[in-house]
Amino acid sequence: MTDRPANAHAHEIRVTWGDCDPARIAYTARLPWFALDAINAWWEEHLGDGWFQMEIDRNLGTPFVRLEMGFRAPVTPRHRLICHVWPSRLGETSISFRVDGEQDGKLCFSTHTTSVFITADKFAKQKPPQEIRDLIAPYLPTAAG
Amino acid sequence: MTDRPANAHAHEIRVTWGDCDPARIAYTARLPWFALDAINAWWEEHLGDGWFQMEIDRNLGTPFVRLEMGFRAPVTPRHRLICHVWPSRLGETSISFRVDGEQDGKLCFSTHTTSVFITADKFAKQKPPQEIRDLIAPYLPTAAG
Amino acid sequence: MTDRPANAHAHEIRVTWGDCDPARIAYTARLPWFALDAINAWWEEHLGDGWFQMEIDRNLGTPFVRLEMGFRAPVTPRHRLICHVWPSRLGETSISFRVDGEQDGKLCFSTHTTSVFITADKFAKQKPPQEIRDLIAPYLPTAAG
Amino acid sequence: MTDRPANAHAHEIRVTWGDCDPARIAYTARLPWFALDAINAWWEEHLGDGWFQMEIDRNLGTPFVRLEMGFRAPVTPRHRLICHVWPSRLGETSISFRVDGEQDGKLCFSTHTTSVFITADKFAKQKPPQEIRDLIAPYLPTAAG
Repeated sequence: MTDRPANAHAHEIRVTWGDCDPARIAYTARLPWFALDAINAWWEEHLGDGWFQMEIDRNLGTPFVRLEMGFRAPVTPRHRLICHVWPSRLGETSISFRVDGEQDGKLCFSTHTTSVFITADKFAKQKPPQEIRDLIAPYLPTAAG
Repeated sequence: MTDRPANAHAHEIRVTWGDCDPARIAYTARLPWFALDAINAWWEEHLGDGWFQMEIDRNLGTPFVRLEMGFRAPVTPRHRLICHVWPSRLGETSISFRVDGEQDGKLCFSTHTTSVFITADKFAKQKPPQEIRDLIAPYLPTAAG
Repeated sequence: MTDRPANAHAHEIRVTWGDCDPARIAYTARLPWFALDAINAWWEEHLGDGWFQMEIDRNLGTPFVRLEMGFRAPVTPRHRLICHVWPSRLGETSISFRVDGEQDGKLCFSTHTTSVFITADKFAKQKPPQEIRDLIAPYLPTAAG
Repeated sequence: MTDRPANAHAHEIRVTWGDCDPARIAYTARLPWFALDAINAWWEEHLGDGWFQMEIDRNLGTPFVRLEMGFRAPVTPRHRLICHVWPSRLGETSISFRVDGEQDGKLCFSTHTTSVFITADKFAKQKPPQEIRDLIAPYLPTAAG
Protein backbone atom coordinates (compact mmCIF):
# COMPACT_ATOMS: atom_id res chain seq x y z
CA MET A 1 0.00 0.00 0.00
CA THR A 2 1.54 3.25 -1.11
CA ASP A 3 -0.10 5.24 1.67
CA ARG A 4 1.31 3.23 4.58
CA PRO A 5 3.94 5.19 6.49
CA ALA A 6 7.26 3.50 7.16
CA ASN A 7 6.73 3.97 10.91
CA ALA A 8 3.40 2.13 11.02
CA HIS A 9 3.30 -0.30 13.93
CA ALA A 10 3.18 -4.02 13.09
CA HIS A 11 0.98 -5.94 15.54
CA GLU A 12 1.16 -9.71 15.26
CA ILE A 13 -1.90 -11.90 15.88
CA ARG A 14 -1.93 -15.69 16.15
CA VAL A 15 -5.08 -16.77 14.34
CA THR A 16 -6.43 -20.07 15.66
CA TRP A 17 -8.94 -22.84 15.10
CA GLY A 18 -11.38 -21.06 17.40
CA ASP A 19 -11.31 -17.91 15.25
CA CYS A 20 -12.39 -19.89 12.19
CA ASP A 21 -15.85 -20.76 10.96
CA PRO A 22 -16.91 -23.88 9.05
CA ALA A 23 -15.51 -22.32 5.84
CA ARG A 24 -12.10 -22.81 7.53
CA ILE A 25 -11.32 -19.09 7.52
CA ALA A 26 -11.50 -16.52 10.28
CA TYR A 27 -15.14 -15.53 10.84
CA THR A 28 -15.83 -12.05 9.45
CA ALA A 29 -16.96 -10.71 12.83
CA ARG A 30 -13.56 -11.63 14.32
CA LEU A 31 -11.77 -9.24 11.94
CA PRO A 32 -13.02 -5.97 13.45
CA TRP A 33 -11.93 -7.41 16.81
CA PHE A 34 -8.45 -8.01 15.41
CA ALA A 35 -8.34 -4.50 13.92
CA LEU A 36 -9.29 -2.96 17.25
CA ASP A 37 -6.67 -5.11 19.01
CA ALA A 38 -4.13 -3.58 16.65
CA ILE A 39 -5.22 -0.01 17.44
CA ASN A 40 -5.05 -0.75 21.16
CA ALA A 41 -1.57 -2.17 20.59
CA TRP A 42 -0.55 1.06 18.80
CA TRP A 43 -1.44 3.01 21.95
CA GLU A 44 0.40 0.51 24.14
CA GLU A 45 3.44 0.78 21.91
CA HIS A 46 3.57 4.58 21.70
CA LEU A 47 1.81 5.88 24.81
CA GLY A 48 2.74 2.97 27.06
CA ASP A 49 -0.93 2.65 27.95
CA GLY A 50 -3.72 0.84 26.16
CA TRP A 51 -7.42 1.78 26.34
CA PHE A 52 -7.77 0.22 29.78
CA GLN A 53 -5.10 2.41 31.35
CA MET A 54 -6.13 5.47 29.30
CA GLU A 55 -9.68 5.21 30.66
CA ILE A 56 -8.89 4.33 34.26
CA ASP A 57 -5.60 6.12 34.89
CA ARG A 58 -5.99 9.12 32.55
CA ASN A 59 -9.81 9.51 32.41
CA LEU A 60 -9.46 9.64 28.62
CA GLY A 61 -11.72 7.62 26.34
CA THR A 62 -11.71 7.21 22.56
CA PRO A 63 -15.07 5.69 21.56
CA PHE A 64 -15.50 4.81 17.91
CA VAL A 65 -17.91 6.72 15.72
CA ARG A 66 -17.00 5.04 12.43
CA LEU A 67 -15.59 1.73 11.20
CA GLU A 68 -15.02 0.73 7.57
CA MET A 69 -13.46 -2.51 6.47
CA GLY A 70 -12.75 -3.90 3.03
CA PHE A 71 -12.09 -7.64 2.94
CA ARG A 72 -9.73 -8.77 0.20
CA ALA A 73 -8.52 -12.25 1.09
CA PRO A 74 -9.44 -14.82 3.74
CA VAL A 75 -7.55 -14.87 7.04
CA THR A 76 -6.44 -18.34 8.18
CA PRO A 77 -4.32 -19.98 10.90
CA ARG A 78 -1.71 -20.89 8.26
CA HIS A 79 0.26 -17.70 8.85
CA ARG A 80 0.53 -15.10 11.56
CA LEU A 81 -1.69 -12.08 10.86
CA ILE A 82 0.36 -8.88 10.75
CA CYS A 83 -1.75 -5.80 11.39
CA HIS A 84 -0.03 -2.63 10.19
CA VAL A 85 -1.59 0.21 12.15
CA TRP A 86 -1.11 3.97 12.07
CA PRO A 87 -3.05 7.15 12.80
CA SER A 88 -4.24 8.57 9.50
CA ARG A 89 -5.74 11.85 10.70
CA LEU A 90 -5.82 13.89 13.89
CA GLY A 91 -8.72 16.35 14.16
CA GLU A 92 -9.58 18.83 16.90
CA THR A 93 -11.40 16.19 18.94
CA SER A 94 -11.09 13.09 16.77
CA ILE A 95 -8.53 10.58 15.57
CA SER A 96 -8.61 8.22 12.61
CA PHE A 97 -6.66 5.00 12.33
CA ARG A 98 -5.85 2.72 9.45
CA VAL A 99 -5.24 -0.98 9.95
CA ASP A 100 -4.02 -3.21 7.13
CA GLY A 101 -4.11 -6.91 7.92
CA GLU A 102 -1.61 -9.01 6.00
CA GLN A 103 -0.76 -12.70 5.90
CA ASP A 104 2.28 -14.05 4.09
CA GLY A 105 2.81 -10.64 2.50
CA LYS A 106 -0.72 -10.49 1.08
CA LEU A 107 -3.31 -7.85 2.06
CA CYS A 108 -6.31 -9.54 3.71
CA PHE A 109 -8.26 -6.51 4.89
CA SER A 110 -8.00 -2.78 5.12
CA THR A 111 -9.63 -0.77 7.90
CA HIS A 112 -10.47 2.90 8.46
CA THR A 113 -11.77 3.98 11.85
CA THR A 114 -12.63 7.27 13.49
CA SER A 115 -12.89 7.84 17.23
CA VAL A 116 -13.59 10.91 19.31
CA PHE A 117 -11.69 11.89 22.42
CA ILE A 118 -13.85 12.08 25.51
CA THR A 119 -13.51 12.78 29.20
CA ALA A 120 -14.20 9.24 30.28
CA ASP A 121 -16.22 9.77 33.45
CA LYS A 122 -18.44 12.35 31.71
CA PHE A 123 -18.67 10.67 28.29
CA ALA A 124 -18.21 14.24 26.95
CA LYS A 125 -16.18 15.17 23.89
CA GLN A 126 -12.89 16.96 24.63
CA LYS A 127 -9.72 17.99 22.87
CA PRO A 128 -6.97 15.50 23.59
CA PRO A 129 -4.17 16.62 25.95
CA GLN A 130 -1.23 18.28 24.19
CA GLU A 131 0.98 15.39 25.29
CA ILE A 132 -1.20 13.06 23.25
CA ARG A 133 -1.21 15.39 20.22
CA ASP A 134 2.57 15.62 20.32
CA LEU A 135 2.90 11.89 20.63
CA ILE A 136 0.69 11.21 17.61
CA ALA A 137 2.05 13.85 15.22
CA PRO A 138 5.20 12.03 14.06
CA TYR A 139 3.18 9.00 13.03
CA LEU A 140 0.67 10.82 10.82
CA PRO A 141 1.21 10.28 7.09
CA THR A 142 1.51 14.07 6.63
CA ALA A 143 4.48 14.04 8.99
CA ALA A 144 6.54 12.55 6.19
CA GLY A 145 6.58 15.83 4.27
CA MET B 1 -34.83 6.28 9.31
CA THR B 2 -36.71 7.27 6.19
CA ASP B 3 -35.00 4.62 4.06
CA ARG B 4 -35.99 1.61 6.16
CA PRO B 5 -38.63 -0.52 4.41
CA ALA B 6 -41.70 -1.48 6.37
CA ASN B 7 -40.90 -5.15 5.85
CA ALA B 8 -37.41 -4.99 7.39
CA HIS B 9 -36.86 -7.87 9.80
CA ALA B 10 -36.50 -6.99 13.49
CA HIS B 11 -33.92 -9.25 15.20
CA GLU B 12 -33.81 -8.97 18.98
CA ILE B 13 -30.53 -9.30 20.88
CA ARG B 14 -30.18 -9.59 24.66
CA VAL B 15 -27.10 -7.49 25.47
CA THR B 16 -25.38 -8.69 28.63
CA TRP B 17 -22.68 -7.94 31.18
CA GLY B 18 -20.20 -10.00 29.20
CA ASP B 19 -20.75 -7.88 26.08
CA CYS B 20 -19.77 -4.73 27.98
CA ASP B 21 -16.36 -3.22 28.55
CA PRO B 22 -15.22 -1.21 31.58
CA ALA B 23 -17.00 1.87 30.15
CA ARG B 24 -20.19 -0.10 30.91
CA ILE B 25 -21.29 -0.16 27.27
CA ALA B 26 -21.09 -2.92 24.70
CA TYR B 27 -17.52 -3.19 23.40
CA THR B 28 -17.25 -1.75 19.88
CA ALA B 29 -15.95 -5.02 18.44
CA ARG B 30 -19.13 -6.79 19.63
CA LEU B 31 -21.31 -4.57 17.43
CA PRO B 32 -20.21 -5.98 14.05
CA TRP B 33 -20.88 -9.42 15.56
CA PHE B 34 -24.41 -8.31 16.47
CA ALA B 35 -24.95 -6.84 12.98
CA LEU B 36 -23.86 -10.10 11.36
CA ASP B 37 -26.11 -12.07 13.70
CA ALA B 38 -28.98 -9.94 12.42
CA ILE B 39 -28.12 -10.64 8.76
CA ASN B 40 -27.91 -14.36 9.50
CA ALA B 41 -31.30 -14.08 11.21
CA TRP B 42 -32.74 -12.39 8.08
CA TRP B 43 -31.76 -15.46 6.05
CA GLU B 44 -33.18 -17.80 8.69
CA GLU B 45 -36.44 -15.83 8.67
CA HIS B 46 -36.89 -15.66 4.92
CA LEU B 47 -35.00 -18.61 3.44
CA GLY B 48 -35.48 -20.92 6.42
CA ASP B 49 -31.72 -21.49 6.43
CA GLY B 50 -28.94 -19.45 8.01
CA TRP B 51 -25.34 -19.33 6.75
CA PHE B 52 -24.57 -22.72 8.26
CA GLN B 53 -27.27 -24.53 6.30
CA MET B 54 -26.68 -22.40 3.18
CA GLU B 55 -23.03 -23.47 3.12
CA ILE B 56 -23.43 -27.11 4.06
CA ASP B 57 -26.80 -28.03 2.55
CA ARG B 58 -26.85 -25.67 -0.46
CA ASN B 59 -23.13 -25.20 -1.18
CA LEU B 60 -23.81 -21.46 -1.27
CA GLY B 61 -21.58 -18.98 0.56
CA THR B 62 -21.88 -15.21 0.99
CA PRO B 63 -18.49 -13.93 2.22
CA PHE B 64 -18.30 -10.26 3.07
CA VAL B 65 -16.26 -7.86 0.98
CA ARG B 66 -17.31 -4.67 2.75
CA LEU B 67 -18.51 -3.54 6.18
CA GLU B 68 -19.30 0.03 7.23
CA MET B 69 -20.66 1.01 10.61
CA GLY B 70 -21.56 4.37 12.06
CA PHE B 71 -21.89 4.42 15.84
CA ARG B 72 -24.39 6.94 17.17
CA ALA B 73 -25.21 5.97 20.73
CA PRO B 74 -23.85 3.42 23.21
CA VAL B 75 -25.43 -0.02 23.41
CA THR B 76 -26.13 -1.25 26.95
CA PRO B 77 -27.87 -4.14 28.76
CA ARG B 78 -30.62 -1.73 29.90
CA HIS B 79 -32.79 -2.50 26.87
CA ARG B 80 -33.06 -5.22 24.28
CA LEU B 81 -31.16 -4.34 21.10
CA ILE B 82 -33.48 -4.42 18.10
CA CYS B 83 -31.59 -4.88 14.85
CA HIS B 84 -33.67 -3.84 11.85
CA VAL B 85 -32.20 -5.66 8.88
CA TRP B 86 -33.02 -5.63 5.18
CA PRO B 87 -31.31 -6.23 1.83
CA SER B 88 -30.52 -2.82 0.33
CA ARG B 89 -29.22 -3.90 -3.07
CA LEU B 90 -29.02 -7.09 -5.13
CA GLY B 91 -26.34 -7.11 -7.81
CA GLU B 92 -25.48 -9.76 -10.38
CA THR B 93 -23.26 -11.64 -7.92
CA SER B 94 -23.49 -9.51 -4.79
CA ILE B 95 -25.91 -8.52 -2.06
CA SER B 96 -25.87 -5.56 0.29
CA PHE B 97 -27.57 -5.44 3.67
CA ARG B 98 -28.43 -2.62 6.02
CA VAL B 99 -28.65 -3.17 9.77
CA ASP B 100 -29.92 -0.44 12.09
CA GLY B 101 -29.43 -1.22 15.77
CA GLU B 102 -31.91 0.50 18.10
CA GLN B 103 -32.45 0.54 21.83
CA ASP B 104 -35.51 2.09 23.43
CA GLY B 105 -36.47 3.60 20.07
CA LYS B 106 -33.09 5.33 19.63
CA LEU B 107 -30.67 4.56 16.80
CA CYS B 108 -27.40 3.18 18.22
CA PHE B 109 -25.63 2.14 15.03
CA SER B 110 -26.18 1.89 11.33
CA THR B 111 -24.50 -0.76 9.18
CA HIS B 112 -23.92 -1.25 5.45
CA THR B 113 -22.45 -4.53 4.25
CA THR B 114 -21.73 -6.09 0.89
CA SER B 115 -21.20 -9.80 0.29
CA VAL B 116 -20.62 -11.82 -2.85
CA PHE B 117 -22.31 -15.09 -3.67
CA ILE B 118 -19.93 -18.00 -4.07
CA THR B 119 -20.02 -21.70 -4.75
CA ALA B 120 -18.92 -22.70 -1.28
CA ASP B 121 -16.71 -25.71 -2.00
CA LYS B 122 -14.86 -23.80 -4.76
CA PHE B 123 -14.79 -20.36 -3.09
CA ALA B 124 -15.67 -19.06 -6.59
CA LYS B 125 -18.01 -16.17 -7.33
CA GLN B 126 -21.36 -17.20 -8.84
CA LYS B 127 -24.75 -15.71 -9.58
CA PRO B 128 -27.23 -16.66 -6.86
CA PRO B 129 -29.90 -19.25 -7.76
CA GLN B 130 -33.10 -17.74 -9.17
CA GLU B 131 -34.95 -19.02 -6.10
CA ILE B 132 -32.77 -16.80 -3.95
CA ARG B 133 -33.21 -13.77 -6.25
CA ASP B 134 -36.99 -14.19 -6.16
CA LEU B 135 -36.95 -14.52 -2.41
CA ILE B 136 -34.95 -11.33 -1.92
CA ALA B 137 -36.74 -9.08 -4.41
CA PRO B 138 -39.80 -8.19 -2.31
CA TYR B 139 -37.59 -6.97 0.53
CA LEU B 140 -35.47 -4.56 -1.50
CA PRO B 141 -36.28 -0.89 -0.89
CA THR B 142 -36.97 -0.48 -4.62
CA ALA B 143 -39.70 -3.10 -4.33
CA ALA B 144 -41.84 -0.49 -2.64
CA GLY B 145 -42.37 1.39 -5.89
CA MET C 1 -31.55 -35.70 34.15
CA THR C 2 -33.16 -36.92 37.32
CA ASP C 3 -31.76 -34.08 39.40
CA ARG C 4 -33.22 -31.23 37.36
CA PRO C 5 -36.02 -29.44 39.22
CA ALA C 6 -39.28 -28.89 37.38
CA ASN C 7 -38.93 -25.13 37.88
CA ALA C 8 -35.53 -24.87 36.20
CA HIS C 9 -35.45 -21.93 33.78
CA ALA C 10 -35.13 -22.76 30.07
CA HIS C 11 -32.95 -20.21 28.26
CA GLU C 12 -32.94 -20.47 24.48
CA ILE C 13 -29.82 -19.72 22.43
CA ARG C 14 -29.66 -19.41 18.66
CA VAL C 15 -26.37 -21.09 17.71
CA THR C 16 -24.95 -19.70 14.48
CA TRP C 17 -22.29 -20.11 11.81
CA GLY C 18 -20.03 -17.73 13.70
CA ASP C 19 -20.16 -19.89 16.84
CA CYS C 20 -18.86 -22.90 14.90
CA ASP C 21 -15.31 -23.97 14.18
CA PRO C 22 -14.03 -25.82 11.11
CA ALA C 23 -15.35 -29.10 12.59
CA ARG C 24 -18.81 -27.55 11.96
CA ILE C 25 -19.75 -27.62 15.64
CA ALA C 26 -19.81 -24.86 18.23
CA TYR C 27 -16.24 -24.14 19.37
CA THR C 28 -15.66 -25.52 22.87
CA ALA C 29 -14.72 -22.10 24.27
CA ARG C 30 -18.15 -20.75 23.22
CA LEU C 31 -19.92 -23.22 25.50
CA PRO C 32 -18.88 -21.69 28.85
CA TRP C 33 -20.05 -18.36 27.36
CA PHE C 34 -23.46 -19.92 26.60
CA ALA C 35 -23.65 -21.43 30.09
CA LEU C 36 -22.93 -18.05 31.69
CA ASP C 37 -25.51 -16.40 29.44
CA ALA C 38 -28.01 -18.88 30.85
CA ILE C 39 -27.11 -18.06 34.45
CA ASN C 40 -27.41 -14.34 33.72
CA ALA C 41 -30.80 -15.06 32.15
CA TRP C 42 -31.87 -16.91 35.33
CA TRP C 43 -31.21 -13.74 37.33
CA GLU C 44 -33.04 -11.61 34.76
CA GLU C 45 -36.01 -13.98 34.89
CA HIS C 46 -36.27 -14.19 38.66
CA LEU C 47 -34.72 -11.02 40.06
CA GLY C 48 -35.62 -8.81 37.12
CA ASP C 49 -31.97 -7.75 36.97
CA GLY C 50 -29.03 -9.42 35.26
CA TRP C 51 -25.39 -9.08 36.37
CA PHE C 52 -25.13 -5.62 34.84
CA GLN C 53 -27.95 -4.17 36.90
CA MET C 54 -26.97 -6.19 40.00
CA GLU C 55 -23.48 -4.67 39.90
CA ILE C 56 -24.39 -1.11 39.00
CA ASP C 57 -27.78 -0.62 40.64
CA ARG C 58 -27.40 -2.96 43.65
CA ASN C 59 -23.62 -2.95 44.19
CA LEU C 60 -23.81 -6.74 44.31
CA GLY C 61 -21.37 -8.92 42.39
CA THR C 62 -21.18 -12.69 41.96
CA PRO C 63 -17.72 -13.54 40.60
CA PHE C 64 -17.09 -17.17 39.73
CA VAL C 65 -14.67 -19.26 41.73
CA ARG C 66 -15.38 -22.57 40.00
CA LEU C 67 -16.56 -23.85 36.63
CA GLU C 68 -16.93 -27.50 35.59
CA MET C 69 -18.30 -28.66 32.29
CA GLY C 70 -18.80 -32.10 30.85
CA PHE C 71 -19.28 -32.21 27.09
CA ARG C 72 -21.49 -35.04 25.87
CA ALA C 73 -22.56 -34.19 22.33
CA PRO C 74 -21.64 -31.50 19.81
CA VAL C 75 -23.67 -28.28 19.68
CA THR C 76 -24.66 -27.17 16.18
CA PRO C 77 -26.83 -24.53 14.46
CA ARG C 78 -29.30 -27.29 13.42
CA HIS C 79 -31.42 -26.79 16.52
CA ARG C 80 -31.93 -24.13 19.14
CA LEU C 81 -29.80 -24.73 22.23
CA ILE C 82 -32.00 -24.95 25.32
CA CYS C 83 -30.05 -24.22 28.51
CA HIS C 84 -31.85 -25.53 31.59
CA VAL C 85 -30.51 -23.51 34.49
CA TRP C 86 -31.16 -23.65 38.23
CA PRO C 87 -29.40 -22.82 41.51
CA SER C 88 -28.14 -26.08 42.96
CA ARG C 89 -26.84 -24.83 46.30
CA LEU C 90 -26.97 -21.63 48.36
CA GLY C 91 -24.20 -21.25 50.93
CA GLU C 92 -23.56 -18.50 53.46
CA THR C 93 -21.72 -16.36 50.90
CA SER C 94 -21.80 -18.52 47.79
CA ILE C 95 -24.19 -19.82 45.16
CA SER C 96 -23.87 -22.78 42.81
CA PHE C 97 -25.67 -23.12 39.51
CA ARG C 98 -26.25 -26.04 37.19
CA VAL C 99 -26.72 -25.54 33.47
CA ASP C 100 -27.70 -28.41 31.18
CA GLY C 101 -27.48 -27.58 27.49
CA GLU C 102 -29.80 -29.61 25.27
CA GLN C 103 -30.49 -29.73 21.55
CA ASP C 104 -33.40 -31.67 20.07
CA GLY C 105 -33.99 -33.28 23.48
CA LYS C 106 -30.41 -34.55 23.75
CA LEU C 107 -27.99 -33.48 26.50
CA CYS C 108 -24.98 -31.69 24.94
CA PHE C 109 -23.23 -30.43 28.06
CA SER C 110 -23.67 -30.25 31.79
CA THR C 111 -22.27 -27.40 33.87
CA HIS C 112 -21.60 -26.81 37.56
CA THR C 113 -20.51 -23.38 38.71
CA THR C 114 -19.87 -21.71 42.03
CA SER C 115 -19.79 -17.97 42.63
CA VAL C 116 -19.34 -15.88 45.73
CA PHE C 117 -21.41 -12.86 46.63
CA ILE C 118 -19.40 -9.66 46.95
CA THR C 119 -19.94 -6.01 47.64
CA ALA C 120 -19.12 -4.89 44.12
CA ASP C 121 -17.29 -1.63 44.76
CA LYS C 122 -15.10 -3.26 47.43
CA PHE C 123 -14.67 -6.68 45.75
CA ALA C 124 -15.21 -8.05 49.28
CA LYS C 125 -17.12 -11.20 50.11
CA GLN C 126 -20.51 -10.61 51.77
CA LYS C 127 -23.66 -12.52 52.66
CA PRO C 128 -26.34 -11.90 50.05
CA PRO C 129 -29.29 -9.67 51.05
CA GLN C 130 -32.21 -11.57 52.56
CA GLU C 131 -34.34 -10.55 49.58
CA ILE C 132 -31.97 -12.48 47.35
CA ARG C 133 -31.93 -15.53 49.67
CA ASP C 134 -35.72 -15.58 49.73
CA LEU C 135 -35.89 -15.29 45.98
CA ILE C 136 -33.52 -18.20 45.40
CA ALA C 137 -34.89 -20.64 47.98
CA PRO C 138 -37.90 -21.94 46.02
CA TYR C 139 -35.68 -22.87 43.07
CA LEU C 140 -33.18 -24.98 44.99
CA PRO C 141 -33.54 -28.74 44.41
CA THR C 142 -34.00 -29.24 48.16
CA ALA C 143 -37.08 -27.01 48.02
CA ALA C 144 -38.94 -29.82 46.30
CA GLY C 145 -39.23 -32.02 49.31
CA MET D 1 2.45 -24.92 42.00
CA THR D 2 4.45 -27.93 43.08
CA ASP D 3 2.96 -30.16 40.37
CA ARG D 4 3.99 -28.00 37.40
CA PRO D 5 6.79 -29.62 35.39
CA ALA D 6 9.83 -27.52 34.56
CA ASN D 7 9.21 -28.07 30.85
CA ALA D 8 5.67 -26.68 30.88
CA HIS D 9 5.14 -24.29 27.98
CA ALA D 10 4.58 -20.61 28.83
CA HIS D 11 2.04 -19.01 26.49
CA GLU D 12 1.74 -15.24 26.76
CA ILE D 13 -1.60 -13.47 26.29
CA ARG D 14 -2.11 -9.72 26.01
CA VAL D 15 -5.30 -9.04 27.96
CA THR D 16 -7.11 -5.94 26.71
CA TRP D 17 -9.95 -3.53 27.35
CA GLY D 18 -12.24 -5.61 25.16
CA ASP D 19 -11.66 -8.72 27.30
CA CYS D 20 -12.86 -6.89 30.40
CA ASP D 21 -16.34 -6.46 31.77
CA PRO D 22 -17.71 -3.50 33.73
CA ALA D 23 -16.00 -4.85 36.89
CA ARG D 24 -12.76 -3.93 35.05
CA ILE D 25 -11.51 -7.52 35.03
CA ALA D 26 -11.47 -10.11 32.26
CA TYR D 27 -14.96 -11.55 31.85
CA THR D 28 -15.13 -15.09 33.26
CA ALA D 29 -16.22 -16.57 29.93
CA ARG D 30 -13.04 -15.24 28.29
CA LEU D 31 -10.86 -17.36 30.60
CA PRO D 32 -11.75 -20.77 29.14
CA TRP D 33 -11.00 -19.20 25.73
CA PHE D 34 -7.56 -18.16 27.00
CA ALA D 35 -6.93 -21.63 28.48
CA LEU D 36 -7.80 -23.29 25.18
CA ASP D 37 -5.57 -20.82 23.32
CA ALA D 38 -2.75 -22.01 25.57
CA ILE D 39 -3.41 -25.69 24.81
CA ASN D 40 -3.50 -24.94 21.10
CA ALA D 41 -0.19 -23.08 21.53
CA TRP D 42 1.29 -26.16 23.27
CA TRP D 43 0.54 -28.21 20.14
CA GLU D 44 1.96 -25.50 17.88
CA GLU D 45 5.10 -25.37 20.00
CA HIS D 46 5.72 -29.12 20.20
CA LEU D 47 4.02 -30.65 17.16
CA GLY D 48 4.48 -27.66 14.88
CA ASP D 49 0.75 -27.81 14.13
CA GLY D 50 -2.17 -26.35 16.04
CA TRP D 51 -5.73 -27.76 16.01
CA PHE D 52 -6.42 -26.26 12.59
CA GLN D 53 -3.55 -28.10 10.90
CA MET D 54 -4.10 -31.26 13.00
CA GLU D 55 -7.69 -31.47 11.77
CA ILE D 56 -7.17 -30.51 8.16
CA ASP D 57 -3.70 -31.86 7.39
CA ARG D 58 -3.62 -34.88 9.73
CA ASN D 59 -7.33 -35.77 10.03
CA LEU D 60 -6.80 -35.83 13.80
CA GLY D 61 -9.22 -34.12 16.18
CA THR D 62 -9.12 -33.70 19.95
CA PRO D 63 -12.60 -32.61 21.08
CA PHE D 64 -12.98 -31.79 24.76
CA VAL D 65 -15.03 -33.99 27.04
CA ARG D 66 -14.22 -32.19 30.30
CA LEU D 67 -13.20 -28.71 31.48
CA GLU D 68 -12.61 -27.64 35.08
CA MET D 69 -11.45 -24.23 36.13
CA GLY D 70 -10.76 -22.74 39.53
CA PHE D 71 -10.61 -18.95 39.60
CA ARG D 72 -8.29 -17.54 42.24
CA ALA D 73 -7.57 -13.92 41.31
CA PRO D 74 -8.94 -11.50 38.71
CA VAL D 75 -7.20 -11.22 35.34
CA THR D 76 -6.61 -7.65 34.16
CA PRO D 77 -4.83 -5.76 31.34
CA ARG D 78 -2.24 -4.50 33.89
CA HIS D 79 0.10 -7.43 33.21
CA ARG D 80 0.58 -9.99 30.49
CA LEU D 81 -1.21 -13.25 31.29
CA ILE D 82 1.24 -16.14 31.30
CA CYS D 83 -0.48 -19.48 30.73
CA HIS D 84 1.69 -22.38 31.86
CA VAL D 85 0.43 -25.40 29.96
CA TRP D 86 1.38 -29.08 30.03
CA PRO D 87 -0.14 -32.49 29.35
CA SER D 88 -0.99 -34.04 32.70
CA ARG D 89 -2.10 -37.49 31.56
CA LEU D 90 -2.06 -39.53 28.37
CA GLY D 91 -4.61 -42.35 28.21
CA GLU D 92 -5.26 -44.93 25.50
CA THR D 93 -7.50 -42.56 23.55
CA SER D 94 -7.50 -39.42 25.69
CA ILE D 95 -5.25 -36.61 26.80
CA SER D 96 -5.52 -34.27 29.76
CA PHE D 97 -3.98 -30.83 29.98
CA ARG D 98 -3.36 -28.45 32.82
CA VAL D 99 -3.25 -24.69 32.30
CA ASP D 100 -2.22 -22.33 35.08
CA GLY D 101 -2.82 -18.66 34.30
CA GLU D 102 -0.52 -16.24 36.12
CA GLN D 103 -0.16 -12.49 36.20
CA ASP D 104 2.74 -10.76 37.90
CA GLY D 105 3.78 -14.08 39.44
CA LYS D 106 0.36 -14.68 41.01
CA LEU D 107 -1.90 -17.62 40.13
CA CYS D 108 -5.16 -16.33 38.60
CA PHE D 109 -6.75 -19.58 37.48
CA SER D 110 -6.01 -23.26 37.25
CA THR D 111 -7.47 -25.46 34.52
CA HIS D 112 -7.88 -29.21 33.99
CA THR D 113 -9.15 -30.48 30.66
CA THR D 114 -9.65 -33.86 29.06
CA SER D 115 -9.98 -34.46 25.33
CA VAL D 116 -10.36 -37.60 23.27
CA PHE D 117 -8.47 -38.33 20.09
CA ILE D 118 -10.72 -38.82 17.08
CA THR D 119 -10.42 -39.48 13.37
CA ALA D 120 -11.63 -36.05 12.34
CA ASP D 121 -13.68 -36.84 9.24
CA LYS D 122 -15.48 -39.69 11.05
CA PHE D 123 -15.78 -38.04 14.49
CA ALA D 124 -14.81 -41.51 15.82
CA LYS D 125 -12.56 -42.17 18.79
CA GLN D 126 -9.09 -43.53 17.92
CA LYS D 127 -5.75 -44.13 19.55
CA PRO D 128 -3.37 -41.29 18.72
CA PRO D 129 -0.56 -42.06 16.25
CA GLN D 130 2.65 -43.33 17.89
CA GLU D 131 4.41 -40.17 16.70
CA ILE D 132 2.02 -38.15 18.83
CA ARG D 133 2.45 -40.45 21.86
CA ASP D 134 6.23 -40.19 21.60
CA LEU D 135 6.05 -36.45 21.29
CA ILE D 136 3.88 -36.04 24.39
CA ALA D 137 5.68 -38.48 26.71
CA PRO D 138 8.60 -36.26 27.76
CA TYR D 139 6.24 -33.52 28.88
CA LEU D 140 4.09 -35.63 31.18
CA PRO D 141 4.70 -35.01 34.88
CA THR D 142 5.54 -38.71 35.32
CA ALA D 143 8.37 -38.28 32.83
CA ALA D 144 10.31 -36.42 35.49
CA GLY D 145 11.06 -39.47 37.59
